[in-house]
Amino acid sequence: MSTSYNEIAGRSLERIGALSDGVFAIAMTLIVLEIRVPDLAGIQTDGDLWAALLRLAPRFVTYFLSFLTLGIFWNGQQTQLHSFGRANRHLAWIHLAFLAAVALMPFSTSFLAEFIGFRVALLAYWVNLALLGVILYASWVYARRAGLVRDDIGHEVDAAIKRRIVSYQIAYLAAAALAFLPSFGGVPPTYVSIGLVVLTQLNSAIAPRIPFISRF
Amino acid sequence: MSTSYNEIAGRSLERIGALSDGVFAIAMTLIVLEIRVPDLAGIQTDGDLWAALLRLAPRFVTYFLSFLTLGIFWNGQQTQLHSFGRANRHLAWIHLAFLAAVALMPFSTSFLAEFIGFRVALLAYWVNLALLGVILYASWVYARRAGLVRDDIGHEVDAAIKRRIVSYQIAYLAAAALAFLPSFGGVPPTYVSIGLVVLTQLNSAIAPRIPFISRF
Amino acid sequence: MSTSYNEIAGRSLERIGALSDGVFAIAMTLIVLEIRVPDLAGIQTDGDLWAALLRLAPRFVTYFLSFLTLGIFWNGQQTQLHSFGRANRHLAWIHLAFLAAVALMPFSTSFLAEFIGFRVALLAYWVNLALLGVILYASWVYARRAGLVRDDIGHEVDAAIKRRIVSYQIAYLAAAALAFLPSFGGVPPTYVSIGLVVLTQLNSAIAPRIPFISRF
Amino acid sequence: MSTSYNEIAGRSLERIGALSDGVFAIAMTLIVLEIRVPDLAGIQTDGDLWAALLRLAPRFVTYFLSFLTLGIFWNGQQTQLHSFGRANRHLAWIHLAFLAAVALMPFSTSFLAEFIGFRVALLAYWVNLALLGVILYASWVYARRAGLVRDDIGHEVDAAIKRRIVSYQIAYLAAAALAFLPSFGGVPPTYVSIGLVVLTQLNSAIAPRIPFISRF
Repeated sequence: MSTSYNEIAGRSLERIGALSDGVFAIAMTLIVLEIRVPDLAGIQTDGDLWAALLRLAPRFVTYFLSFLTLGIFWNGQQTQLHSFGRANRHLAWIHLAFLAAVALMPFSTSFLAEFIGFRVALLAYWVNLALLGVILYASWVYARRAGLVRDDIGHEVDAAIKRRIVSYQIAYLAAAALAFLPSFGGVPPTYVSIGLVVLTQLNSAIAPRIPFISRF
Repeated sequence: MSTSYNEIAGRSLERIGALSDGVFAIAMTLIVLEIRVPDLAGIQTDGDLWAALLRLAPRFVTYFLSFLTLGIFWNGQQTQLHSFGRANRHLAWIHLAFLAAVALMPFSTSFLAEFIGFRVALLAYWVNLALLGVILYASWVYARRAGLVRDDIGHEVDAAIKRRIVSYQIAYLAAAALAFLPSFGGVPPTYVSIGLVVLTQLNSAIAPRIPFISRF
Repeated sequence: MSTSYNEIAGRSLERIGALSDGVFAIAMTLIVLEIRVPDLAGIQTDGDLWAALLRLAPRFVTYFLSFLTLGIFWNGQQTQLHSFGRANRHLAWIHLAFLAAVALMPFSTSFLAEFIGFRVALLAYWVNLALLGVILYASWVYARRAGLVRDDIGHEVDAAIKRRIVSYQIAYLAAAALAFLPSFGGVPPTYVSIGLVVLTQLNSAIAPRIPFISRF
Repeated sequence: MSTSYNEIAGRSLERIGALSDGVFAIAMTLIVLEIRVPDLAGIQTDGDLWAALLRLAPRFVTYFLSFLTLGIFWNGQQTQLHSFGRANRHLAWIHLAFLAAVALMPFSTSFLAEFIGFRVALLAYWVNLALLGVILYASWVYARRAGLVRDDIGHEVDAAIKRRIVSYQIAYLAAAALAFLPSFGGVPPTYVSIGLVVLTQLNSAIAPRIPFISRF
């Protein structure tokens, strides 16, 4: 009866949370490593150094974007973990899959920073965002079905969690689609996409009380 | 009486768990760093970038493989820690040895990705898998003998944990042995080995209800 | 009512603390990676190696400085977290912003070490210090206003926390301003600034009982 | 009264433990990164790859040595933390200083691996070991004097903790001193030193019941 092993494995919600905090903390810190200190050679004055710092701007933008993204999904995951009464081995593996997608963020971020004008880089970044959303949605649906959600979590919370994930995934999809429009007034379309994703993430982080938007 | 020191050291199960979560989280995130962003030079179109991304495929395969492996052994270790009532300094050192093998995974993964067609690289990866299994098995046997396992953990769980480790180690050994068969239809034998290990790990992660296989 | 999502998200003080410990731990360890082992080529005797080690001195100084800085802000943040009775999603995001500034420290440190005689590098480091202080101050003010601070935390603690942040930020500002004075006796002005920041941080770490200074 | 800030800061033993687990976990994992995967160029057969793997042997030795060292000091610190009833800001800073020395281990390890035949590299490694021991000793002495140690911790434990640190530091000092003897039978003296440190660490880890040695 190998189910016996599967029954005893993966029960600890606390350790899923602890492992997740570790992976998020490392991913959040590693994305900074892509902002490389300029090379000493050729820099002689404060003006040169200032110019070199400005050339790092795309790296700072993608760092900011990915930190927001990681913060949003950290919040999303911990809201779920907080709502679960217990775990099982399937839930543990769903969250391991989620962490695998979290761990990919430094790569996606760096890939986007290096190729910021390329649609393939933006698509790869969007695939990562979509993976995070899909797995988090699956986690919630599975946990409800398997009876792992605490009894005091009502239908409103259930609906709020689902609506949140779906509406943001629609926004990401729309932003990614924009990159395939023709260039508008000389601005590369991937820049428009990135701008829209940043605005979406900022809306999630700051949660302004804008009548229509704050309903999602 | 220096035994006095050894008696007071290493008693905290929680800190063994916390250190382990940290090492696993870092190992899981570092294996992504081996997927290096392609060099900007020579990439001019989205087609070039897509081709460069495809050339990274072996890296994604070994990343996926090692994430599964780390997830399996994280589950295996936490199942044990969950079953222990208390720790002692010997158990702490057994788990430190286990973590030393976990920390080697990024090296083994990168080594395999770089030399995916070489038997030596596959053997090195297998040695790492075997080390993880042997130490985890030793941890359980030692903890039983030293009376560290909780009283409510019965013989069924004991048998399930042992059977699990042994049957998977046999599968890894068989997969590694396949690499020494002659090439079959032009497919390098190390690819067959890696495929078998991936299938074994997927079976562990997904735990499908296949009549015969799910008994292990 | 998406406020429903925002109401349930970000309530766990423990997970904010755990994520923060992770980010601080990684930032503290990554700043060491900037102290690169000298190149084997050209080093033949112990004397050569000793000379190469001495040339790394600026890296050790900035490592020491940044470790002190991270320790100070880790203490500052955990003092606040210890004083909070509960969290909400806004507080979680304030602390995520704080962690984003913490995660930038390895970059700022490395940037300062590489360009230790440049005012731009010192300014960048100061901006990072200022960000950390401003966000930590905002965290406290917000938590007081939103009623998240424990009831047993009196006005004295409130005043102490604010005074601490403000007085240190004034010291950092003064130190940064010194870098814009003309060179004094051949010593580059940025060195004077760095020396003053190190002294400020040491005062915070060692907390000597100096009559006037220990009042802040 | 800025003592007010110092009185409220740094009280949480749990967060010192959590930060320490994080720093140790990262240091343990980073030392592996110094074992670099051989370069693909020039490797054509399994024999070539095996030879390249063997050339990495010094890296594996220093990895093993540093993992043992980190394990020993992790145990030493957690034994102390386990014995404390509460913390204060001075104790927090002593442990931050300890962590600064822990975070230096990846540098010392890499420095020793790269310059394994040089006395300066061995001395640098020894300085790191000595720093760890001195700070851990200071932590215990300070905690006793400040009344932070739990009441149920008797004089035997006190004596055992002190004797442990002192006797190992004497062994490290003796091992480092050996490196300054003339070469013996063609074996570089630093190799003899490293061998002795490894044996000392193994004795600590395995804790064999050897009549004389196990008294320390």
